[in-house]
Amino acid sequence: MQNTITSFQNPKIKFLNQLKEKSRVRKKEGLFVIEGQRELSLALEGGYTITQLYYCSSIIPSETVDTILSQLQYQVLIYEITTEIYQKLSYRTTTEGIIAVATFKNLDIQDLVLPSKNPLILVAEAPEKPGNIGALLRTADAAQLDAVLIANPKTDVYNPNIIRSSIGCLFTTNLAVGSSSEIIDFLKKQHIIIYGAALRDAVDYHIQDYTQPTAIVVGTEATGLSNVFLTSTDQNIKIPMSGVIDSMNVSVAAGILVFEAKRQRDFI
Amino acid sequence: MQNTITSFQNPKIKFLNQLKEKSRVRKKEGLFVIEGQRELSLALEGGYTITQLYYCSSIIPSETVDTILSQLQYQVLIYEITTEIYQKLSYRTTTEGIIAVATFKNLDIQDLVLPSKNPLILVAEAPEKPGNIGALLRTADAAQLDAVLIANPKTDVYNPNIIRSSIGCLFTTNLAVGSSSEIIDFLKKQHIIIYGAALRDAVDYHIQDYTQPTAIVVGTEATGLSNVFLTSTDQNIKIPMSGVIDSMNVSVAAGILVFEAKRQRDFI
Repeated sequence: MQNTITSFQNPKIKFLNQLKEKSRVRKKEGLFVIEGQRELSLALEGGYTITQLYYCSSIIPSETVDTILSQLQYQVLIYEITTEIYQKLSYRTTTEGIIAVATFKNLDIQDLVLPSKNPLILVAEAPEKPGNIGALLRTADAAQLDAVLIANPKTDVYNPNIIRSSIGCLFTTNLAVGSSSEIIDFLKKQHIIIYGAALRDAVDYHIQDYTQPTAIVVGTEATGLSNVFLTSTDQNIKIPMSGVIDSMNVSVAAGILVFEAKRQRDFI
Repeated sequence: MQNTITSFQNPKIKFLNQLKEKSRVRKKEGLFVIEGQRELSLALEGGYTITQLYYCSSIIPSETVDTILSQLQYQVLIYEITTEIYQKLSYRTTTEGIIAVATFKNLDIQDLVLPSKNPLILVAEAPEKPGNIGALLRTADAAQLDAVLIANPKTDVYNPNIIRSSIGCLFTTNLAVGSSSEIIDFLKKQHIIIYGAALRDAVDYHIQDYTQPTAIVVGTEATGLSNVFLTSTDQNIKIPMSGVIDSMNVSVAAGILVFEAKRQRDFI
């Protein structure tokens, strides 16, 4: 293990920092940053390709780095970095000593393959807060959804805060991204029933049947679903609410809808 | 309207800032800060007492301030502050021009009154992240739970981030705080069945009956429920999960359990 980097001014470290901070740079390069052993291991399981590894030998034992390298079937660039650089680059206080650069996957909705003939899918339109997207992805993993589709994302899915708040579920979810129209076209072509979480002409969610091919669509907390979706859903559904404010967190609402579908499907 | 404050060094502004930032100061003074018209209005609806009002006349019309004052049946101290001071004090970019100081309510579990003879209650043990607590309170409002009990809180409930992420549901929820043992004693005395969200000896949540007096207890994401609760639940329940990671966000999991209970109770 060679090439120890000791300066924060090193061009590689500057680039790593830019990849972490700037969506524009991520998109231009087709690269993103993964921090932590667990996340890296899930990314490998999810079929992501690593191009660079940065490790801090005062935190991660070299045997662990060797084990990670042995899992890779290809060459990666490896750099040792000082504790000081690692701490500046990393988010966590409970640091794990490893940061990887990985290549974007093709998340184009046109290329999405559904693993089941009777799919259960969650669609999130224009989600914004990384914490909410992370929570949605954790729900998707727990429910083993056939896909999560993100329509008109306001932030790129490789945002480090999404990776972190999803605790790596980003990598284990069958994910696709597209415009709302592209996603509607995809769902219609596959004969998947579209249920919109929206008040307009809605029925209570729990009297609806989700045992057929189903997509549950949630919009933003501020403005709900777009007109494009509102005019394309097969049925709108609502959660009966009886409080003063009646505005649930979007990832909580999505969880309630998804697990009602799971319950009806006997969790199969 | 007199008493315009123009300096950030003004002792009142310094105190306001300390109330906002420091749990210790809030607890010592029994006071907390409310930002925004909607939140203030919900706090008044929830029976909170306001002691001071700070408004920024370049943002909020003086008629609106007058309307707020007319709602109060008692004297409050009123100060005008400059735009600069308001912007330094406020969290929001979409500012609303008003900040209030309010007194703590008595949230002692011993003094909790339940509005229903067949209550549905959510208990959160040692919750930490303000965003999660805010989401739990929004769920509690939407489900019109009879109470939300917070056992061994890691952060005081008047933390500004909780108020903000609950979008004011903190004020509309029947809330109580106590140690885990105090809360268990309260529930047992009231003959409320305690369902713990925990894997130990758990049954699937959806085959359980929640139509009797019910408390659903969720623990932390990191360590789950404490032994005190684990040895006191009547039945543990789990959400069947089939993913790679199987770890849902705590407020999503609580939402799924609470709304399954609501569904069984026909949302009454």
